[in-house]
Amino acid sequence: MKKIRDLVVDEDFQGFVLIKTADVRIAKNGKTFIAFTFQDNSGSIDGKFWDASNDEIQRFEVGRVVHLTGKREVYQGNPQVKIYKLRLTNPEEPNDPSLFMERAPVKKEAMEEDINQTIFEIINPHWNRIVRFLLNKYKKEFFEYPAAKKNHHAFAGGLAYHTTTMLHLGKSLVNEYPQLDASLLYAGVILHDLGKVIELSGAMATEYTVVGNLVGHLVLVDEEITKACLALKIDESTEDIVVLRHMVLAHHGQLDYGSPVRPRIMEAEILHQIDNIDASMQMLNNAISKTEPGEYTERIFGMDNRSFYVPKNVE
Amino acid sequence: MKKIRDLVVDEDFQGFVLIKTADVRIAKNGKTFIAFTFQDNSGSIDGKFWDASNDEIQRFEVGRVVHLTGKREVYQGNPQVKIYKLRLTNPEEPNDPSLFMERAPVKKEAMEEDINQTIFEIINPHWNRIVRFLLNKYKKEFFEYPAAKKNHHAFAGGLAYHTTTMLHLGKSLVNEYPQLDASLLYAGVILHDLGKVIELSGAMATEYTVVGNLVGHLVLVDEEITKACLALKIDESTEDIVVLRHMVLAHHGQLDYGSPVRPRIMEAEILHQIDNIDASMQMLNNAISKTEPGEYTERIFGMDNRSFYVPKNVE
Amino acid sequence: MKKIRDLVVDEDFQGFVLIKTADVRIAKNGKTFIAFTFQDNSGSIDGKFWDASNDEIQRFEVGRVVHLTGKREVYQGNPQVKIYKLRLTNPEEPNDPSLFMERAPVKKEAMEEDINQTIFEIINPHWNRIVRFLLNKYKKEFFEYPAAKKNHHAFAGGLAYHTTTMLHLGKSLVNEYPQLDASLLYAGVILHDLGKVIELSGAMATEYTVVGNLVGHLVLVDEEITKACLALKIDESTEDIVVLRHMVLAHHGQLDYGSPVRPRIMEAEILHQIDNIDASMQMLNNAISKTEPGEYTERIFGMDNRSFYVPKNVE
Amino acid sequence: MKKIRDLVVDEDFQGFVLIKTADVRIAKNGKTFIAFTFQDNSGSIDGKFWDASNDEIQRFEVGRVVHLTGKREVYQGNPQVKIYKLRLTNPEEPNDPSLFMERAPVKKEAMEEDINQTIFEIINPHWNRIVRFLLNKYKKEFFEYPAAKKNHHAFAGGLAYHTTTMLHLGKSLVNEYPQLDASLLYAGVILHDLGKVIELSGAMATEYTVVGNLVGHLVLVDEEITKACLALKIDESTEDIVVLRHMVLAHHGQLDYGSPVRPRIMEAEILHQIDNIDASMQMLNNAISKTEPGEYTERIFGMDNRSFYVPKNVE
Amino acid sequence: MKKIRDLVVDEDFQGFVLIKTADVRIAKNGKTFIAFTFQDNSGSIDGKFWDASNDEIQRFEVGRVVHLTGKREVYQGNPQVKIYKLRLTNPEEPNDPSLFMERAPVKKEAMEEDINQTIFEIINPHWNRIVRFLLNKYKKEFFEYPAAKKNHHAFAGGLAYHTTTMLHLGKSLVNEYPQLDASLLYAGVILHDLGKVIELSGAMATEYTVVGNLVGHLVLVDEEITKACLALKIDESTEDIVVLRHMVLAHHGQLDYGSPVRPRIMEAEILHQIDNIDASMQMLNNAISKTEPGEYTERIFGMDNRSFYVPKNVE
Amino acid sequence: MKKIRDLVVDEDFQGFVLIKTADVRIAKNGKTFIAFTFQDNSGSIDGKFWDASNDEIQRFEVGRVVHLTGKREVYQGNPQVKIYKLRLTNPEEPNDPSLFMERAPVKKEAMEEDINQTIFEIINPHWNRIVRFLLNKYKKEFFEYPAAKKNHHAFAGGLAYHTTTMLHLGKSLVNEYPQLDASLLYAGVILHDLGKVIELSGAMATEYTVVGNLVGHLVLVDEEITKACLALKIDESTEDIVVLRHMVLAHHGQLDYGSPVRPRIMEAEILHQIDNIDASMQMLNNAISKTEPGEYTERIFGMDNRSFYVPKNVE
Repeated sequence: MKKIRDLVVDEDFQGFVLIKTADVRIAKNGKTFIAFTFQDNSGSIDGKFWDASNDEIQRFEVGRVVHLTGKREVYQGNPQVKIYKLRLTNPEEPNDPSLFMERAPVKKEAMEEDINQTIFEIINPHWNRIVRFLLNKYKKEFFEYPAAKKNHHAFAGGLAYHTTTMLHLGKSLVNEYPQLDASLLYAGVILHDLGKVIELSGAMATEYTVVGNLVGHLVLVDEEITKACLALKIDESTEDIVVLRHMVLAHHGQLDYGSPVRPRIMEAEILHQIDNIDASMQMLNNAISKTEPGEYTERIFGMDNRSFYVPKNVE
Repeated sequence: MKKIRDLVVDEDFQGFVLIKTADVRIAKNGKTFIAFTFQDNSGSIDGKFWDASNDEIQRFEVGRVVHLTGKREVYQGNPQVKIYKLRLTNPEEPNDPSLFMERAPVKKEAMEEDINQTIFEIINPHWNRIVRFLLNKYKKEFFEYPAAKKNHHAFAGGLAYHTTTMLHLGKSLVNEYPQLDASLLYAGVILHDLGKVIELSGAMATEYTVVGNLVGHLVLVDEEITKACLALKIDESTEDIVVLRHMVLAHHGQLDYGSPVRPRIMEAEILHQIDNIDASMQMLNNAISKTEPGEYTERIFGMDNRSFYVPKNVE
Repeated sequence: MKKIRDLVVDEDFQGFVLIKTADVRIAKNGKTFIAFTFQDNSGSIDGKFWDASNDEIQRFEVGRVVHLTGKREVYQGNPQVKIYKLRLTNPEEPNDPSLFMERAPVKKEAMEEDINQTIFEIINPHWNRIVRFLLNKYKKEFFEYPAAKKNHHAFAGGLAYHTTTMLHLGKSLVNEYPQLDASLLYAGVILHDLGKVIELSGAMATEYTVVGNLVGHLVLVDEEITKACLALKIDESTEDIVVLRHMVLAHHGQLDYGSPVRPRIMEAEILHQIDNIDASMQMLNNAISKTEPGEYTERIFGMDNRSFYVPKNVE
Repeated sequence: MKKIRDLVVDEDFQGFVLIKTADVRIAKNGKTFIAFTFQDNSGSIDGKFWDASNDEIQRFEVGRVVHLTGKREVYQGNPQVKIYKLRLTNPEEPNDPSLFMERAPVKKEAMEEDINQTIFEIINPHWNRIVRFLLNKYKKEFFEYPAAKKNHHAFAGGLAYHTTTMLHLGKSLVNEYPQLDASLLYAGVILHDLGKVIELSGAMATEYTVVGNLVGHLVLVDEEITKACLALKIDESTEDIVVLRHMVLAHHGQLDYGSPVRPRIMEAEILHQIDNIDASMQMLNNAISKTEPGEYTERIFGMDNRSFYVPKNVE
Repeated sequence: MKKIRDLVVDEDFQGFVLIKTADVRIAKNGKTFIAFTFQDNSGSIDGKFWDASNDEIQRFEVGRVVHLTGKREVYQGNPQVKIYKLRLTNPEEPNDPSLFMERAPVKKEAMEEDINQTIFEIINPHWNRIVRFLLNKYKKEFFEYPAAKKNHHAFAGGLAYHTTTMLHLGKSLVNEYPQLDASLLYAGVILHDLGKVIELSGAMATEYTVVGNLVGHLVLVDEEITKACLALKIDESTEDIVVLRHMVLAHHGQLDYGSPVRPRIMEAEILHQIDNIDASMQMLNNAISKTEPGEYTERIFGMDNRSFYVPKNVE
Repeated sequence: MKKIRDLVVDEDFQGFVLIKTADVRIAKNGKTFIAFTFQDNSGSIDGKFWDASNDEIQRFEVGRVVHLTGKREVYQGNPQVKIYKLRLTNPEEPNDPSLFMERAPVKKEAMEEDINQTIFEIINPHWNRIVRFLLNKYKKEFFEYPAAKKNHHAFAGGLAYHTTTMLHLGKSLVNEYPQLDASLLYAGVILHDLGKVIELSGAMATEYTVVGNLVGHLVLVDEEITKACLALKIDESTEDIVVLRHMVLAHHGQLDYGSPVRPRIMEAEILHQIDNIDASMQMLNNAISKTEPGEYTERIFGMDNRSFYVPKNVE
């Protein structure tokens, strides 16, 4: 069966997809419809289901795998599916939602290996123990969660993928600028977004939790470091613990972006800058992959709403 | 002996004062001098000590009580003392620095009584226990520390004084707006600035600590709440603990002022606003008390650098 | 008959309501409809009237009491009514619009008493006479007008209600900070928004007047004070009149919010801050009253577009 | 005797000058000095008077004509005079301060003629009468006051000079854009800064008055228009009076610059823009006249602190 | 035949119009329609063409003259046409698109004469030659292009019309302020927006070109000056060429508006200010011409989204 | 002889140094002095030369090598030298200024090799030819100029050093993100700051040139590309030339920082970000090298005026 990303305009198709979002709305003519986003591991597409009955509203809920028959169209410049038929799957048909989620392009095992190798390079024993303690505590979530609800790395495994890519950048910088404290930078990279496993609800139908909204992932991971110190009997007031907490609290770079303190040590500034680069590259890739050469991307919210131009082949 | 605040221009005087600050500088003519701020419990005054020897630089250090003979003058619109003579105190003379510090205008016992009465009104048992636990842990510092290095409530006992005044305002508001959760507001008021006992170095020669600069008092008290939960075996993920953490994290009101999250519950918004009122009133009082009716105060840094007019008696 | 606020989803109902707004629009299918907001004294609700004839458009105008038969539904998360039938009232049926307007929760008489008591406490004779002169001049409007077109206190009697609540806060502050000039603060509170009786068109179908848009209520009340001085033969250049004019001109606190001068006397700063508190509390109450515990309010425009969380019962 | 502007570096000179400002300060070495600004009708120059006695401080006060003997030097890039001798004038010597003030480059009579001619072109009778009434009320001040304390047109007659130049610009624009209401634009130009005769203390030793600081010249002239309506029995609520009030209130263009409302009629926007042009040209002229071709001017505060380049002769 | 601007609500009409824009969309009911903007030389009007076939979509493309039968209506406050019938023109009917475009209100010949007269007043030979060289190179485009895609002067000939009006203003200012270098100001005015002939695609269906988006008209004209110097063998590093480049680069006034440098010579500041005035007047005229006296204009994007009031006849 | 960086407080020394800056000023006591900055290849130090004669002022000019006898002191927290004696060098003594300038820590030959290797990787022939053409044209300056007057890389060879370090970072990113166009990124890195060889006056006594101030290095290098196209007969309107011009124009990232366009292709965004990283690291290194562990650096102007903390040895 064809993947969503491969469908061309006006192509009829059928196959299994995951319901990613399902908003019930009332049309101008007073009829009820469901605005769906369907997903497989190649991408996602919107589609409207007209004249939905109460029964259908309850049947087609978020997280269900369904069988969809339809036609790929375009609506206001965006792909959409005209739904011919929609039904739940039969018992013998595919129905594991996790098979239909978008995923990081690197295998979990490779990322785990990457992380583990890096931990060997964290020489300071406090940082080393705290990183291992917290990765152990949240291991399952760390490799499963996205790095965001939308914007960059908003797919299963996105958090670990973002983290390992940043480690690669971090190692290049340590190479170029030997005065950087590599242990501190790597510990900071691994922990910086770990609070997202508490801030977000999970990989499917991702939402912000209440504590995510009211406390935020920067302070959540800072609290985790503090509690890890208690558990590991490390004095949290020693300078190495203070600077590690600073790393995670300052990584958004600006007060305006939710850091309670701006970076005030060199490695915190660099952590912020490589976070920026990887987020930008991920958002740009995503937008450019949906754009033809010679055209402009849609506006990218996380990059000050700029639209980028994709040059024609210029080599 | 006359107090510093009571001296008039061109008046000669002598008496005991505390060295609050002492900066060693080199004048344009190449000579070394010490720029002092002297203090007694009525206020403070600057003065320059010319041609300081190395011996004098070491003798007249911050925190020492000294005997000062001089003349009250004015320098670029501000009071200053022309130093005739300066010497250390003799054994039989006063030398307890704490007697020379500016202090809150309310006795510690009265503030303690105020706080204790309020704790009875904190009905939620988690909040009640956390507040009592943390006040107990930092009792000495809470009643001794200033609320800031400079700006508002920058005197011994300022932290507790600021807190109790805010409790009074909080009670008026609870009276006017019964929909406010009184327990939550009072718990938030008592804890909101408690992190300053870690952020600042103490009541004398107050400086920011390293952890104060790199983590900040908002997150510091949040961490204290988290650790109190561990000690008291309270589940930190229950909603009442989440909103209490939010209260302290959000109390600066704006991301720009260092809150990692903006107020998103009603009581957090109100906590921020009464903090604002009390800080403003303290800064205004301080500036106005040094200004004649019909004149303008000096510019007040903490109030967007505005200078205020003190109306002539208009009744 | 059930009140609007008490209707539940999918409930059929009929009864008398006031037409608050009525916008004639053309649907995508080319047909004309009227987008109504209906109101009774419990609240308001939107509803669309399809295929409106020219006759119906003229019959169902703003300010008319009508008899509505319909069903309470939800449209994009907001309550709406599906209109079954709509007709004008018969002679013997209710048709006094003022009975259907939302009103301040306090009786006019109580508010009037509050104001009068306060005037006794305005000791400065100039301020006392000006306040009485202007309240007398605009007495009817002062107790009938809303404090805004939308946002906070946007209901009949809202202006007086906002004013009396602020007087209560003002008295608490005078109590806590005796250095405040109570007469000046109370006079400022009573007059600060009085210009709204010129800026706005009235309690029903409230709009900005041309002079409201081109001059604004801050300057309008300042002009009123100036003219009152002429009428009362008070020299407007004496300092007490200057500071009273400053109170009303500066009460928005920031140039950006339309004050031509920032607060530069202590009482003006405090007037601004209690105005802020009461406006915030009113907007928060309004939003929270429409929100279930455990949910977030709609975004509140007047509070930087924040959405607030309503904690579950935490006591 | 040579004028101040004509002195060259290192030139000795003597002559009569006016004391424009005189600040008494204490030097780092503890000695008292007076920081003078001396003025004649060609310009002004700073100079320090060392070791001033109390007697001298009282004798050499602002507004006195004195006889100065000194040498023209340069201090940190700015002209200054090294004072050899300073004495009060004898009875038979010049001592009329008004002869030593910087003045507008156009005679008062010419400006008066300009204004009078323009009034004939104000066809709307309300505007015509209000303009004449207020010019008559403040005639002396209007032709004597500066347009500012410093920045642009800070010299005697500056207010009228600024006004007449703006009228010339206004007439060019009316010519180019016939849709502009000439009467309204001219009335707005003449009145826009008239409040400065209340905001400022006068042409000599110009300071802001208390009402200038607390109310400001925009609202002050608005009040004057309102009172003129009372005196002339014109109804202030007719639309022509509303737009005239709007013209003066909106002429700073931005809320940030102290206008309580932004321009919302075409003529108000244009009034703001020609005010801008004339202020810019005056500040640029002033700065450029003190700068050699091929050099940069000092930073101009009123133009966002920019320094301008003066091109070498390029024709 | 009636012009578009003259049609009244509910009036039936037929005639020839130009298709200015044509967006193909899908309605909520799944049907395809074309959202047209039709234009004649009096103005433009929107209209929807329902149930468009693929054939019709291809036939009715932008830039075609068509025969339209319809009725003038109002949709959400804006004029629109209800389309009864639409067909291509027959061979003998009008079909020259250029006859249907909105045009500057001044003839090309008059503008050309204006420009040529001004060039005589550019005395500096370098500036004179560069201006003539570039006007010659882009003569056709200069008199045909609009000055913008939308906002101000968005009609055929708008660029030249904007330029000549600015020259008139420039001459008034040179008259009032003789210290301005007239040659430089006029050369700057003529060249300042010339880069728009490269930045925009033309007078019909105006779009930004890729080089327009990625380089911008300020730098594009700067490059043209540089290349003109090469062609004319003028040394680009002489000061007169440097200041001319500065004029065009700085004319947006602020970095925020896309100038890489802020104005730093007097004539560059003035060029910016008269550009501002003419753009404002053009936008105001355009909006006011569509508004009844006593009403407010639509919000004007290019003027900070303000809506302006059109006073009733007040003379 | 000891280097400047190695001197300790209160150490007497003598040796040869270069005069980097020499400002003539008048002291408060009326005496003339010269405020020097002396330099050798290890760093620089300030010192005041009192009672300077006209002869000495002319003798000790910027760019001269002199023999200095003095003592290393501290003035307001910064190192300074107390000058005992200062004289010009004798013929047989060192007097080549270039030997006393601070220099990039990498040899010119190594940087040249780096650049040359990279040029091989620029596959697009237009970009390759333009880069070689411009590097050839400005070869001497490219390897000699600093990258700034002050702030980052303000030393001889700083421009090439900044460029080669950025190339290293660029290669790491190309490795991590294969979708980047390596040719374009490398060409952009090499050219991005090349305009500084026109914007700045040189490696010694570096100042902004007039064309640097009025045009700026972004547009200057854009013009160079345009002229290179003419010389190399490359059509500047082909898309590859447009994107290359965009790279250099957009590299400041924000309009506020002087880019006339924001980055709108992926490689332009990345060029901006690695420019940022290298500038930050250079400023941080410079400040940290002057700071003891456990202390804070001076405020760094180019990093929003932040002061950074240097952690104590934490491994």
